[in-house]
Amino acid sequence: MDWTATLPMKMTQGFDAAVGYELLEVTDDLVRARAEVRDEIKQQAGLVHGGVYSSIAESIASIGTYVVVSRDGRTAQGMSNQTSFLRPILEGHIHAEARARHKGRTTWVWEVDFTDDQGRLCALTRMTIAVR
Amino acid sequence: MDWTATLPMKMTQGFDAAVGYELLEVTDDLVRARAEVRDEIKQQAGLVHGGVYSSIAESIASIGTYVVVSRDGRTAQGMSNQTSFLRPILEGHIHAEARARHKGRTTWVWEVDFTDDQGRLCALTRMTIAVR
Amino acid sequence: MDWTATLPMKMTQGFDAAVGYELLEVTDDLVRARAEVRDEIKQQAGLVHGGVYSSIAESIASIGTYVVVSRDGRTAQGMSNQTSFLRPILEGHIHAEARARHKGRTTWVWEVDFTDDQGRLCALTRMTIAVR
Amino acid sequence: MDWTATLPMKMTQGFDAAVGYELLEVTDDLVRARAEVRDEIKQQAGLVHGGVYSSIAESIASIGTYVVVSRDGRTAQGMSNQTSFLRPILEGHIHAEARARHKGRTTWVWEVDFTDDQGRLCALTRMTIAVR
Repeated sequence: MDWTATLPMKMTQGFDAAVGYELLEVTDDLVRARAEVRDEIKQQAGLVHGGVYSSIAESIASIGTYVVVSRDGRTAQGMSNQTSFLRPILEGHIHAEARARHKGRTTWVWEVDFTDDQGRLCALTRMTIAVR
Repeated sequence: MDWTATLPMKMTQGFDAAVGYELLEVTDDLVRARAEVRDEIKQQAGLVHGGVYSSIAESIASIGTYVVVSRDGRTAQGMSNQTSFLRPILEGHIHAEARARHKGRTTWVWEVDFTDDQGRLCALTRMTIAVR
Repeated sequence: MDWTATLPMKMTQGFDAAVGYELLEVTDDLVRARAEVRDEIKQQAGLVHGGVYSSIAESIASIGTYVVVSRDGRTAQGMSNQTSFLRPILEGHIHAEARARHKGRTTWVWEVDFTDDQGRLCALTRMTIAVR
Repeated sequence: MDWTATLPMKMTQGFDAAVGYELLEVTDDLVRARAEVRDEIKQQAGLVHGGVYSSIAESIASIGTYVVVSRDGRTAQGMSNQTSFLRPILEGHIHAEARARHKGRTTWVWEVDFTDDQGRLCALTRMTIAVR
């Protein structure tokens, strides 16, 4: 059964539920997600908390890797997460698009672009995932 | 009035509340915090979600910078967050200790060590904060 | 006078000369360079030294920023350099392509792709440049 | 035979020779090195080129890992290098001190502090080394 047929899917478990994003698309090279900006994901100054971008990147790069490597019984685990914050988001949605740049035997590397509803680039993550 | 006199302080607002950490100590060079491991901050495999470490680092480095720079009317905003995951935490607490390594005119740089209840190093963050 | 008319240009000064790269193209959003693999840029195991990628990224992102910001009297200075090594290069050339992802008032962010003569992705750099 | 008995050792091969550093101390947890500031390692503005810090960190973290893991036939290879530039160095020496923060089965993580002759912190590197 292909669970990706059930997309879009709202995350309802664990920390993903706190972040509150929706998984939109999962292919072998690309994962897209979207989160609605709510008070629960902001920091005190009214902006989306930087940790929200890091958390979405972590989740969707892990999912994207796992979907592929689990086919031959391997697992995926986050190894490093480098997020740069370029422009704050105050309202609307966070749009995340993760692209696999390297699919090695022991590590995968993803680059994640975050944009706002106007399509402006707001954050960038490079995520390294260990495969075992 | 010195708000640090009210420490330890459980975070109750915004994304900090979702992460659910407690601020233990805030000096001009050091911030310490602790979060209890709960299902709400885990990922599917039962480990603490990597985004939790990134989020705590983001928050406490920002607080540590803000406490100092706000004295002369400046503000602090996260600029980059580089987190390396060394060892998973499954239960107990996440202990975070942030040390200011650079206090420049336009940027501050913090290094954050995360340990578990046994004192083992579990994650490292280097956090750059823009000061304006 | 437009110095970019003199491209390609072999770097002959300072550390750029030690790295020994050639500047191929400089636009407001893109810089391309190429270095021939020689013993002088290898490490002991016979691979191109990782610092070579970091150094090329540093130089070309700085040049790309400087070309634009110097028009109104501002300067560019490297702030952080995050390089991931994906596949070693042993011979031939290192091809570098830097794209400006963010052109802010105080910082620019570039992403640099490094490929070998077969077009395989070998390293990635995210470079943050401070503008003053 | 213990080659560390021959320290301090001036690097004379490959890219290490171009950087021109001297290895001062190598233990299982710490590596120290020093480079004299010369025109050959500067960028155009007269500062030490940022790639020099990245290159020294890459080399000494690799050496520090290799010295230990080669005892049981394993090798070390650079995986990621995150360098933050805090204060330029114009003359004198670059002093580098690398400390192993994580010695895992498949990766080691080092943090490297760079200081000038006055002991001021000038750059920071977090270096991840793959062990195979």
